[in-house]
Amino acid sequence: MLNYRNELDKMPSYDGVEKNYRIKVNANESTLSLPPLVEERVLNRLALLAFNRYPNEEYYSLVEQIARNFSVDAAQILLGGGSSEIIEKVFHTFGGAGRKIVFPQPSFSMYKIYAKAAEADGVTFDLDARFDLDVDAFIAKIREIGASLAVVCNPNNPTGNVLTPAQVEKIAASIDCAFLLDEAYVEFYGRSAVNLVAKYPNLLVARTFSKAYGMAGARVGYMIAQAEVTRMVNKTFMPYHLNVLSLAAADIVYQMRDEFVPRLQMTIAERQRMKERLETLSGVEVFPSEANFLLIRLSRAEELKDYLETLGIGIRYFSPSAFGLKDCLRISMGTRAENDEVFAAIKNFLEVPL
Amino acid sequence: MLNYRNELDKMPSYDGVEKNYRIKVNANESTLSLPPLVEERVLNRLALLAFNRYPNEEYYSLVEQIARNFSVDAAQILLGGGSSEIIEKVFHTFGGAGRKIVFPQPSFSMYKIYAKAAEADGVTFDLDARFDLDVDAFIAKIREIGASLAVVCNPNNPTGNVLTPAQVEKIAASIDCAFLLDEAYVEFYGRSAVNLVAKYPNLLVARTFSKAYGMAGARVGYMIAQAEVTRMVNKTFMPYHLNVLSLAAADIVYQMRDEFVPRLQMTIAERQRMKERLETLSGVEVFPSEANFLLIRLSRAEELKDYLETLGIGIRYFSPSAFGLKDCLRISMGTRAENDEVFAAIKNFLEVPL
Repeated sequence: MLNYRNELDKMPSYDGVEKNYRIKVNANESTLSLPPLVEERVLNRLALLAFNRYPNEEYYSLVEQIARNFSVDAAQILLGGGSSEIIEKVFHTFGGAGRKIVFPQPSFSMYKIYAKAAEADGVTFDLDARFDLDVDAFIAKIREIGASLAVVCNPNNPTGNVLTPAQVEKIAASIDCAFLLDEAYVEFYGRSAVNLVAKYPNLLVARTFSKAYGMAGARVGYMIAQAEVTRMVNKTFMPYHLNVLSLAAADIVYQMRDEFVPRLQMTIAERQRMKERLETLSGVEVFPSEANFLLIRLSRAEELKDYLETLGIGIRYFSPSAFGLKDCLRISMGTRAENDEVFAAIKNFLEVPL
Repeated sequence: MLNYRNELDKMPSYDGVEKNYRIKVNANESTLSLPPLVEERVLNRLALLAFNRYPNEEYYSLVEQIARNFSVDAAQILLGGGSSEIIEKVFHTFGGAGRKIVFPQPSFSMYKIYAKAAEADGVTFDLDARFDLDVDAFIAKIREIGASLAVVCNPNNPTGNVLTPAQVEKIAASIDCAFLLDEAYVEFYGRSAVNLVAKYPNLLVARTFSKAYGMAGARVGYMIAQAEVTRMVNKTFMPYHLNVLSLAAADIVYQMRDEFVPRLQMTIAERQRMKERLETLSGVEVFPSEANFLLIRLSRAEELKDYLETLGIGIRYFSPSAFGLKDCLRISMGTRAENDEVFAAIKNFLEVPL
């Protein structure tokens, strides 16, 4: 019997291959790959890479672009393998035995796992029945338990609702501990809190290329915080944790980010259109969303998920044990044609007598 | 003051951009990028990728190829971001407060850092003056201190010498704790211990695409161990830690690995040729090497490093505090032309009167 790290046996394992759906709206991915002009330049850039050299200036080139865009110092930016790795490392930075990391539930399901991996106590704070966060009570809880880190996903996954910048600022101003704002979906909302970083030394903002920029496969995200915080979080990253292909691709994508505006607008328009259509269906509750997905609730959620699977449509169903998400389904926005097909299938399902 | 993880402030930070050398033989990289036929197929494959989807089957495709090659089960393979990430996670798996991780010195300098990151005690075991490992004494030490993990780099970086398969087996058979064999350079030696994995449930072998396959920039490595060990180490990896570009590129490279044989032979031939030439220089000691580099010792090592830098040649110099490496320089094998230029520069340096 090998001498494994304490508690490691209690960590979940990740495996299992995803199904190949014809219409894949289960993972909040962009339904479109790169815009053609961007893809062409990305591929041209990849053709110039020295695969044989350890990544180096490619990291700093992207950091400097991001820093310029937000008018912050390059020392305030860290890159990670998706915002996933950023979040994992921030949890590690403020984790360890006896540390408490607080986050609302329901929210991104990985927070619990990241807390466990950081050997910290993950403490959940319940959202209300409409999935709204009671900001004052959240602040009180953070103080009461002496948390080392508070985490909020804004817009929230999987519910889609948001905190206003004023609410975000209130939290940052009212707590002494680190405050990680996970802005994975913020481009679909438009109200980032990055500008608050200058004022609040406890604020860390995580962003990603996976959603708005259609680069989930490349695994590139970034963090913006004050330089001292960034310096400390950086200690948790080992050298060469990012690869040159993804860095070069993200560098081109970021240079050409205006090319993504039309598809952002499409996603936002589709979210509104789908919301209105789904609301016409009796028995379906549609929650307000500022993200690239909609959360709905209906009494035959699991059955609907199974029915859609038979049509080759993958949507996200939540286990009945997931807090607050009983009978909920999450639908990422596809193209207009994909969304029409998903809607027609849902409508058809509901019209068939039990 | 934010409540950072204990001891995090003592972790080193990594930053600083490497110099752009005209001849870069300081990092044991392949001096050549991908063979043209391989590069063409890699770029064609990258052009077909869905950047917008989270990586999925690309991971398993590469795992299955590697498993077939070694006639092991796919459940025995884990992929990581270079063997670096594999090693980091293995240290974490067997680390934690009070655990002891033993490795020879001088060896890969990151082992100390990985031990610290894993919050374990890194225990060094001194190689002798010829950089040979006293296997019996090493085994005795591992048992004596009750280590949870022993680590050996074979061929050893930065010295280049090796353990025979029989020596590796003796260690595996004589200790109860986990035994990580870092085979980053094994393709230049030819005697892997992967076949011992079936017999020894404590043996973990780390391999990489960074050296022999000229893919240091892509960050892909793998681990082979018995399925139960692999299952436990896998718990330390978060989902989507690998990106689809690197996975697809490595998948093609592994399919076409025969294309790399000529350059492996070139590197091995150059290592022998350079060794013989360097041995003709008075005052230069050349250590035996089975890797893609040579370690030499001479009294004016630092001065020589500075001189080569003025010529745009980067070689590896070790800080005087690095155990056993006083006055040593490590030279990665370049092309024949690059090596000739490096040799001529060293010769010239030694011929100039002090």
